[in-house]
Amino acid sequence: MESAESPSKRAPAAGRGNRMRAAVLEATLAELTESGYAALTVEGVARRAGVHKTTIYRNWKDSDGLVADALAGHFATDIPIPDTGAVEDDLRALARSLVAAMTTRAGRALLTTVLSDAARLPRFAEVKHALFEDRFRRAEPVVTRAVERGELPADTDPAELLKALAAPIYFRLVFTGEPVDEATADRAARIALAAAHAGALPAT
Amino acid sequence: MESAESPSKRAPAAGRGNRMRAAVLEATLAELTESGYAALTVEGVARRAGVHKTTIYRNWKDSDGLVADALAGHFATDIPIPDTGAVEDDLRALARSLVAAMTTRAGRALLTTVLSDAARLPRFAEVKHALFEDRFRRAEPVVTRAVERGELPADTDPAELLKALAAPIYFRLVFTGEPVDEATADRAARIALAAAHAGALPAT
Repeated sequence: MESAESPSKRAPAAGRGNRMRAAVLEATLAELTESGYAALTVEGVARRAGVHKTTIYRNWKDSDGLVADALAGHFATDIPIPDTGAVEDDLRALARSLVAAMTTRAGRALLTTVLSDAARLPRFAEVKHALFEDRFRRAEPVVTRAVERGELPADTDPAELLKALAAPIYFRLVFTGEPVDEATADRAARIALAAAHAGALPAT
Repeated sequence: MESAESPSKRAPAAGRGNRMRAAVLEATLAELTESGYAALTVEGVARRAGVHKTTIYRNWKDSDGLVADALAGHFATDIPIPDTGAVEDDLRALARSLVAAMTTRAGRALLTTVLSDAARLPRFAEVKHALFEDRFRRAEPVVTRAVERGELPADTDPAELLKALAAPIYFRLVFTGEPVDEATADRAARIALAAAHAGALPAT
Protein backbone atom coordinates (compact mmCIF):
# COMPACT_ATOMS: atom_id res chain seq x y z
CA MET A 1 0.00 0.00 0.00
CA GLU A 2 1.27 3.46 -0.78
CA SER A 3 0.62 6.35 1.54
CA ALA A 4 0.53 10.12 1.13
CA GLU A 5 3.20 10.39 3.83
CA SER A 6 5.88 8.61 1.82
CA PRO A 7 5.83 10.32 -1.58
CA SER A 8 9.35 9.15 -2.39
CA LYS A 9 8.35 5.50 -2.21
CA ARG A 10 7.18 4.41 -5.66
CA ALA A 11 3.55 3.30 -5.67
CA PRO A 12 2.52 0.18 -7.60
CA ALA A 13 1.90 1.06 -11.24
CA ALA A 14 -1.80 0.20 -11.08
CA GLY A 15 -2.37 2.46 -8.08
CA ARG A 16 -0.52 5.34 -9.68
CA GLY A 17 -2.45 4.88 -12.90
CA ASN A 18 -5.79 4.84 -11.10
CA ARG A 19 -4.91 7.94 -9.13
CA MET A 20 -3.83 9.76 -12.28
CA ARG A 21 -7.05 8.72 -14.05
CA ALA A 22 -9.18 9.91 -11.14
CA ALA A 23 -7.38 13.27 -11.02
CA VAL A 24 -7.71 13.77 -14.78
CA LEU A 25 -11.40 12.87 -14.85
CA GLU A 26 -12.11 15.11 -11.86
CA ALA A 27 -10.28 17.96 -13.60
CA THR A 28 -12.34 17.31 -16.75
CA LEU A 29 -15.61 17.60 -14.78
CA ALA A 30 -14.37 20.81 -13.14
CA GLU A 31 -13.45 22.32 -16.52
CA LEU A 32 -16.84 21.33 -17.96
CA THR A 33 -18.61 22.88 -14.98
CA GLU A 34 -16.66 26.12 -15.05
CA SER A 35 -16.16 26.73 -18.75
CA GLY A 36 -18.29 24.28 -20.71
CA TYR A 37 -17.55 21.73 -23.39
CA ALA A 38 -16.73 24.19 -26.18
CA ALA A 39 -13.88 25.73 -24.17
CA LEU A 40 -12.44 22.44 -22.89
CA THR A 41 -8.89 21.54 -23.95
CA VAL A 42 -6.54 18.71 -23.06
CA GLU A 43 -4.02 21.40 -22.03
CA GLY A 44 -6.48 22.94 -19.58
CA VAL A 45 -7.35 19.57 -18.06
CA ALA A 46 -3.67 18.63 -17.78
CA ARG A 47 -2.84 21.92 -16.03
CA ARG A 48 -5.68 21.53 -13.56
CA ALA A 49 -4.89 17.86 -12.86
CA GLY A 50 -1.17 18.56 -12.47
CA VAL A 51 -0.12 16.05 -15.13
CA HIS A 52 1.63 16.44 -18.46
CA LYS A 53 -0.65 16.45 -21.46
CA THR A 54 1.28 13.55 -23.01
CA THR A 55 0.11 11.51 -20.00
CA ILE A 56 -3.45 12.28 -21.02
CA TYR A 57 -2.83 11.44 -24.67
CA ARG A 58 -1.34 8.10 -23.62
CA ASN A 59 -4.62 7.22 -21.91
CA TRP A 60 -7.28 9.01 -23.96
CA LYS A 61 -7.50 9.55 -27.69
CA ASP A 62 -8.68 13.14 -27.47
CA SER A 63 -10.69 15.58 -25.39
CA ASP A 64 -13.99 13.97 -26.48
CA GLY A 65 -12.79 10.67 -25.06
CA LEU A 66 -11.96 12.43 -21.81
CA VAL A 67 -15.39 14.05 -21.64
CA ALA A 68 -17.16 10.78 -22.41
CA ASP A 69 -15.24 8.97 -19.64
CA ALA A 70 -15.76 11.81 -17.17
CA LEU A 71 -19.51 11.93 -17.79
CA ALA A 72 -19.87 8.16 -17.55
CA GLY A 73 -17.91 8.06 -14.29
CA HIS A 74 -19.89 10.91 -12.78
CA PHE A 75 -23.31 9.51 -13.65
CA ALA A 76 -22.33 6.04 -12.46
CA THR A 77 -21.93 7.12 -8.86
CA ASP A 78 -23.89 10.33 -8.27
CA ILE A 79 -27.15 8.72 -7.10
CA PRO A 80 -27.08 6.51 -3.97
CA ILE A 81 -29.39 3.49 -4.11
CA PRO A 82 -31.73 3.42 -1.10
CA ASP A 83 -33.00 0.32 0.70
CA THR A 84 -35.51 1.45 3.33
CA GLY A 85 -37.71 -1.63 3.16
CA ALA A 86 -40.68 0.27 1.68
CA VAL A 87 -40.99 1.04 -2.02
CA GLU A 88 -42.70 4.37 -1.45
CA ASP A 89 -39.79 5.61 0.69
CA ASP A 90 -37.19 4.16 -1.67
CA LEU A 91 -38.71 5.87 -4.71
CA ARG A 92 -38.98 9.17 -2.90
CA ALA A 93 -35.35 8.92 -1.74
CA LEU A 94 -34.21 8.04 -5.26
CA ALA A 95 -36.14 10.95 -6.77
CA ARG A 96 -34.81 13.38 -4.17
CA SER A 97 -31.22 12.22 -4.79
CA LEU A 98 -31.72 12.71 -8.52
CA VAL A 99 -33.08 16.22 -7.97
CA ALA A 100 -30.19 17.03 -5.64
CA ALA A 101 -27.60 15.73 -8.12
CA MET A 102 -29.10 17.52 -11.12
CA THR A 103 -29.59 20.91 -9.50
CA THR A 104 -26.00 21.49 -8.38
CA ARG A 105 -23.90 23.74 -10.58
CA ALA A 106 -21.99 20.68 -11.79
CA GLY A 107 -25.20 18.74 -12.46
CA ARG A 108 -26.64 21.54 -14.58
CA ALA A 109 -23.36 22.01 -16.45
CA LEU A 110 -23.11 18.31 -17.24
CA LEU A 111 -26.73 18.22 -18.38
CA THR A 112 -25.99 21.13 -20.71
CA THR A 113 -22.99 19.24 -22.05
CA VAL A 114 -25.03 16.12 -22.68
CA LEU A 115 -27.88 18.03 -24.33
CA SER A 116 -26.42 21.02 -25.96
CA ASP A 117 -22.78 20.99 -26.85
CA ALA A 118 -22.64 17.27 -27.33
CA ALA A 119 -25.93 16.80 -29.15
CA ARG A 120 -24.28 16.64 -32.54
CA LEU A 121 -21.57 14.17 -31.61
CA PRO A 122 -22.58 10.55 -32.15
CA ARG A 123 -20.09 9.32 -29.56
CA PHE A 124 -21.88 11.36 -26.91
CA ALA A 125 -25.24 9.96 -27.97
CA GLU A 126 -23.83 6.52 -27.17
CA VAL A 127 -22.41 7.73 -23.86
CA LYS A 128 -25.74 9.28 -22.94
CA HIS A 129 -27.58 6.07 -23.78
CA ALA A 130 -25.06 3.96 -21.87
CA LEU A 131 -25.08 6.13 -18.78
CA PHE A 132 -28.86 6.13 -18.52
CA GLU A 133 -28.90 2.36 -18.95
CA ASP A 134 -26.24 2.06 -16.29
CA ARG A 135 -28.13 4.28 -13.84
CA PHE A 136 -31.32 2.30 -14.34
CA ARG A 137 -29.50 -0.99 -13.92
CA ARG A 138 -27.93 0.16 -10.64
CA ALA A 139 -31.34 1.18 -9.26
CA GLU A 140 -33.21 -1.94 -10.37
CA PRO A 141 -32.90 -3.65 -6.94
CA VAL A 142 -35.25 -0.98 -5.55
CA VAL A 143 -37.96 -2.38 -7.81
CA THR A 144 -37.11 -6.07 -7.63
CA ARG A 145 -37.08 -5.95 -3.82
CA ALA A 146 -40.49 -4.23 -3.85
CA VAL A 147 -41.87 -6.94 -6.14
CA GLU A 148 -40.44 -9.63 -3.82
CA ARG A 149 -42.10 -7.93 -0.83
CA GLY A 150 -45.40 -7.99 -2.74
CA GLU A 151 -45.64 -4.20 -2.87
CA LEU A 152 -45.79 -4.04 -6.68
CA PRO A 153 -47.33 -6.24 -9.40
CA ALA A 154 -45.06 -9.17 -10.25
CA ASP A 155 -44.70 -8.13 -13.90
CA THR A 156 -43.51 -4.58 -13.13
CA ASP A 157 -40.60 -3.70 -15.40
CA PRO A 158 -37.86 -2.17 -13.22
CA ALA A 159 -36.42 0.01 -15.98
CA GLU A 160 -39.86 1.30 -17.01
CA LEU A 161 -40.68 2.21 -13.42
CA LEU A 162 -37.37 4.03 -13.02
CA LYS A 163 -37.95 5.91 -16.28
CA ALA A 164 -41.43 6.91 -15.08
CA LEU A 165 -39.72 8.25 -11.96
CA ALA A 166 -36.99 10.17 -13.76
CA ALA A 167 -39.05 11.53 -16.66
CA PRO A 168 -41.03 14.24 -14.80
CA ILE A 169 -37.84 15.52 -13.17
CA TYR A 170 -35.89 15.75 -16.43
CA PHE A 171 -38.91 17.23 -18.19
CA ARG A 172 -38.91 20.17 -15.78
CA LEU A 173 -35.13 20.52 -15.89
CA VAL A 174 -34.98 20.60 -19.65
CA PHE A 175 -38.26 21.99 -20.92
CA THR A 176 -40.58 23.91 -18.68
CA GLY A 177 -38.14 26.04 -16.71
CA GLU A 178 -40.17 25.55 -13.51
CA PRO A 179 -38.40 25.08 -10.17
CA VAL A 180 -37.05 21.58 -9.58
CA ASP A 181 -37.11 20.76 -5.88
CA GLU A 182 -38.25 18.21 -3.30
CA ALA A 183 -41.87 18.74 -4.27
CA THR A 184 -40.93 17.83 -7.85
CA ALA A 185 -39.19 14.70 -6.56
CA ASP A 186 -42.11 13.66 -4.36
CA ARG A 187 -44.61 14.17 -7.18
CA ALA A 188 -42.44 12.09 -9.52
CA ALA A 189 -42.31 9.31 -6.93
CA ARG A 190 -46.11 9.36 -6.54
CA ILE A 191 -46.61 9.27 -10.33
CA ALA A 192 -44.26 6.30 -10.77
CA LEU A 193 -45.77 4.42 -7.83
CA ALA A 194 -49.34 4.99 -9.02
CA ALA A 195 -48.41 3.81 -12.51
CA ALA A 196 -46.78 0.68 -11.09
CA HIS A 197 -49.73 -0.09 -8.81
CA ALA A 198 -52.11 0.32 -11.76
CA GLY A 199 -50.10 -2.23 -13.75
CA ALA A 200 -49.16 0.42 -16.33
CA LEU A 201 -45.47 -0.55 -16.35
CA PRO A 202 -45.35 -4.20 -17.41
CA ALA A 203 -42.30 -5.74 -19.04
CA THR A 204 -42.78 -5.59 -22.82
CA MET B 1 -61.08 39.18 -50.62
CA GLU B 2 -58.06 38.69 -52.80
CA SER B 3 -57.64 35.66 -54.98
CA ALA B 4 -54.69 33.92 -56.54
CA GLU B 5 -56.28 34.39 -59.96
CA SER B 6 -56.04 38.17 -59.89
CA PRO B 7 -52.49 38.93 -58.88
CA SER B 8 -52.64 42.42 -60.34
CA LYS B 9 -55.41 43.42 -57.98
CA ARG B 10 -53.82 44.79 -54.81
CA ALA B 11 -54.77 42.81 -51.71
CA PRO B 12 -55.65 44.59 -48.48
CA ALA B 13 -52.48 45.44 -46.58
CA ALA B 14 -53.34 43.19 -43.62
CA GLY B 15 -53.91 40.16 -45.86
CA ARG B 16 -50.68 40.72 -47.75
CA GLY B 17 -48.81 41.13 -44.47
CA ASN B 18 -50.22 37.93 -43.03
CA ARG B 19 -49.41 36.00 -46.19
CA MET B 20 -45.86 37.33 -46.20
CA ARG B 21 -45.45 36.43 -42.50
CA ALA B 22 -46.74 32.91 -43.06
CA ALA B 23 -44.42 32.38 -46.02
CA VAL B 24 -41.40 33.70 -44.12
CA LEU B 25 -42.10 31.59 -41.01
CA GLU B 26 -42.67 28.49 -43.14
CA ALA B 27 -39.38 29.13 -44.92
CA THR B 28 -37.67 29.54 -41.53
CA LEU B 29 -38.97 26.14 -40.37
CA ALA B 30 -37.84 24.54 -43.63
CA GLU B 31 -34.34 26.03 -43.29
CA LEU B 32 -34.14 24.85 -39.66
CA THR B 33 -35.22 21.36 -40.69
CA GLU B 34 -32.82 21.08 -43.61
CA SER B 35 -29.74 22.89 -42.36
CA GLY B 36 -30.17 23.62 -38.65
CA TYR B 37 -30.02 26.75 -36.58
CA ALA B 38 -26.29 27.40 -36.91
CA ALA B 39 -26.55 27.65 -40.71
CA LEU B 40 -29.71 29.75 -40.80
CA THR B 41 -29.46 33.23 -42.34
CA VAL B 42 -32.01 35.94 -43.10
CA GLU B 43 -30.76 35.82 -46.71
CA GLY B 44 -31.49 32.09 -46.96
CA VAL B 45 -34.97 32.50 -45.50
CA ALA B 46 -35.71 35.45 -47.81
CA ARG B 47 -34.61 33.49 -50.88
CA ARG B 48 -36.75 30.48 -49.92
CA ALA B 49 -39.78 32.61 -49.08
CA GLY B 50 -39.43 34.68 -52.25
CA VAL B 51 -39.28 38.02 -50.43
CA HIS B 52 -36.57 40.64 -50.17
CA LYS B 53 -34.52 40.50 -47.00
CA THR B 54 -35.39 44.11 -46.18
CA THR B 55 -39.01 42.90 -45.90
CA ILE B 56 -37.87 40.47 -43.21
CA TYR B 57 -35.84 43.11 -41.39
CA ARG B 58 -38.87 45.43 -41.38
CA ASN B 59 -40.81 42.74 -39.48
CA TRP B 60 -38.20 40.92 -37.42
CA LYS B 61 -35.18 42.27 -35.60
CA ASP B 62 -32.85 39.45 -36.63
CA SER B 63 -32.69 35.75 -37.44
CA ASP B 64 -33.15 34.80 -33.77
CA GLY B 65 -36.44 36.70 -33.74
CA LEU B 66 -37.48 34.79 -36.85
CA VAL B 67 -36.58 31.44 -35.30
CA ALA B 68 -38.39 32.28 -32.05
CA ASP B 69 -41.56 33.22 -33.95
CA ALA B 70 -41.35 30.20 -36.23
CA LEU B 71 -40.94 27.78 -33.31
CA ALA B 72 -43.77 29.39 -31.34
CA GLY B 73 -46.10 29.24 -34.34
CA HIS B 74 -45.22 25.64 -35.09
CA PHE B 75 -45.68 24.38 -31.54
CA ALA B 76 -48.94 26.31 -31.16
CA THR B 77 -50.73 24.28 -33.80
CA ASP B 78 -48.96 20.94 -34.26
CA ILE B 79 -51.02 18.91 -31.77
CA PRO B 80 -54.78 18.58 -32.35
CA ILE B 81 -56.87 18.60 -29.17
CA PRO B 82 -59.15 15.53 -29.02
CA ASP B 83 -62.66 15.38 -27.54
CA THR B 84 -63.81 11.76 -27.66
CA GLY B 85 -65.93 11.90 -24.51
CA ALA B 86 -63.63 9.53 -22.57
CA VAL B 87 -60.48 10.70 -20.83
CA GLU B 88 -58.60 7.49 -21.52
CA ASP B 89 -59.15 7.85 -25.27
CA ASP B 90 -58.41 11.58 -25.21
CA LEU B 91 -55.10 11.08 -23.41
CA ARG B 92 -54.07 8.30 -25.74
CA ALA B 93 -54.95 10.43 -28.79
CA LEU B 94 -53.03 13.39 -27.38
CA ALA B 95 -49.97 11.24 -26.63
CA ARG B 96 -50.08 9.65 -30.10
CA SER B 97 -50.33 13.08 -31.75
CA LEU B 98 -47.36 14.28 -29.73
CA VAL B 99 -45.32 11.23 -30.75
CA ALA B 100 -46.32 11.72 -34.40
CA ALA B 101 -45.38 15.42 -34.33
CA MET B 102 -42.05 14.90 -32.61
CA THR B 103 -40.82 12.00 -34.71
CA THR B 104 -41.10 13.67 -38.11
CA ARG B 105 -37.90 15.05 -39.58
CA ALA B 106 -39.13 18.58 -38.84
CA GLY B 107 -40.12 17.66 -35.27
CA ARG B 108 -36.70 16.20 -34.52
CA ALA B 109 -34.93 19.16 -36.13
CA LEU B 110 -36.96 21.66 -34.11
CA LEU B 111 -36.34 19.71 -30.90
CA THR B 112 -32.62 19.84 -31.65
CA THR B 113 -32.89 23.58 -32.18
CA VAL B 114 -34.71 24.06 -28.91
CA LEU B 115 -32.29 21.87 -26.96
CA SER B 116 -28.98 22.10 -28.60
CA ASP B 117 -28.23 25.13 -30.69
CA ALA B 118 -30.50 27.39 -28.73
CA ALA B 119 -29.66 26.20 -25.23
CA ARG B 120 -27.31 29.07 -24.58
CA LEU B 121 -29.60 31.84 -25.83
CA PRO B 122 -31.80 33.28 -23.07
CA ARG B 123 -34.40 34.43 -25.58
CA PHE B 124 -34.94 30.82 -26.66
CA ALA B 125 -35.27 29.69 -23.05
CA GLU B 126 -38.21 32.08 -22.81
CA VAL B 127 -39.66 30.87 -26.10
CA LYS B 128 -39.35 27.26 -24.94
CA HIS B 129 -41.04 28.03 -21.66
CA ALA B 130 -43.82 29.98 -23.39
CA LEU B 131 -44.49 27.35 -26.00
CA PHE B 132 -44.79 24.56 -23.47
CA GLU B 133 -47.14 26.71 -21.38
CA ASP B 134 -49.15 27.44 -24.50
CA ARG B 135 -49.37 23.78 -25.48
CA PHE B 136 -50.53 22.79 -22.01
CA ARG B 137 -53.08 25.60 -21.91
CA ARG B 138 -54.55 24.53 -25.26
CA ALA B 139 -54.93 20.91 -24.05
CA GLU B 140 -56.39 21.75 -20.64
CA PRO B 141 -60.01 21.20 -21.77
CA VAL B 142 -59.21 17.48 -22.12
CA VAL B 143 -58.67 17.39 -18.36
CA THR B 144 -61.36 19.84 -17.26
CA ARG B 145 -63.99 17.96 -19.29
CA ALA B 146 -62.87 14.67 -17.68
CA VAL B 147 -63.19 16.22 -14.23
CA GLU B 148 -66.68 17.50 -15.15
CA ARG B 149 -67.65 14.03 -16.30
CA GLY B 150 -66.46 12.65 -12.95
CA GLU B 151 -63.71 10.58 -14.55
CA LEU B 152 -60.90 12.20 -12.57
CA PRO B 153 -60.56 13.59 -9.02
CA ALA B 154 -61.95 17.12 -8.78
CA ASP B 155 -58.62 18.60 -7.67
CA THR B 156 -56.64 17.21 -10.62
CA ASP B 157 -54.31 19.90 -11.95
CA PRO B 158 -54.69 19.97 -15.76
CA ALA B 159 -51.14 21.18 -16.44
CA GLU B 160 -49.62 18.59 -14.09
CA LEU B 161 -51.55 15.80 -15.78
CA LEU B 162 -50.45 16.99 -19.22
CA LYS B 163 -46.83 17.17 -18.06
CA ALA B 164 -47.09 13.63 -16.68
CA LEU B 165 -48.33 12.62 -20.15
CA ALA B 166 -45.60 14.42 -22.09
CA ALA B 167 -42.65 13.66 -19.80
CA PRO B 168 -42.13 9.96 -20.65
CA ILE B 169 -42.28 10.75 -24.37
CA TYR B 170 -39.74 13.58 -24.20
CA PHE B 171 -37.55 11.53 -21.88
CA ARG B 172 -37.19 8.85 -24.53
CA LEU B 173 -36.76 11.38 -27.32
CA VAL B 174 -34.03 13.27 -25.54
CA PHE B 175 -32.25 10.86 -23.24
CA THR B 176 -32.57 7.13 -23.66
CA GLY B 177 -32.37 6.79 -27.43
CA GLU B 178 -35.04 4.08 -27.39
CA PRO B 179 -37.70 3.94 -30.13
CA VAL B 180 -40.53 6.43 -29.71
CA ASP B 181 -43.73 5.02 -31.16
CA GLU B 182 -47.41 4.29 -30.44
CA ALA B 183 -46.46 1.93 -27.62
CA THR B 184 -44.54 4.81 -26.02
CA ALA B 185 -47.60 7.03 -26.40
CA ASP B 186 -49.98 4.45 -24.96
CA ARG B 187 -47.71 3.79 -21.99
CA ALA B 188 -47.43 7.54 -21.31
CA ALA B 189 -51.24 7.83 -21.38
CA ARG B 190 -51.58 4.93 -18.90
CA ILE B 191 -48.98 6.45 -16.56
CA ALA B 192 -50.68 9.87 -16.57
CA LEU B 193 -54.13 8.37 -16.09
CA ALA B 194 -53.00 6.12 -13.22
CA ALA B 195 -51.33 9.09 -11.53
CA ALA B 196 -54.48 11.18 -11.89
CA HIS B 197 -56.74 8.39 -10.60
CA ALA B 198 -54.44 7.94 -7.60
CA GLY B 199 -54.75 11.64 -6.77
CA ALA B 200 -51.03 12.19 -7.40
CA LEU B 201 -51.59 15.29 -9.55
CA PRO B 202 -53.40 17.78 -7.33
CA ALA B 203 -53.24 21.51 -7.91
CA THR B 204 -50.48 22.93 -5.71
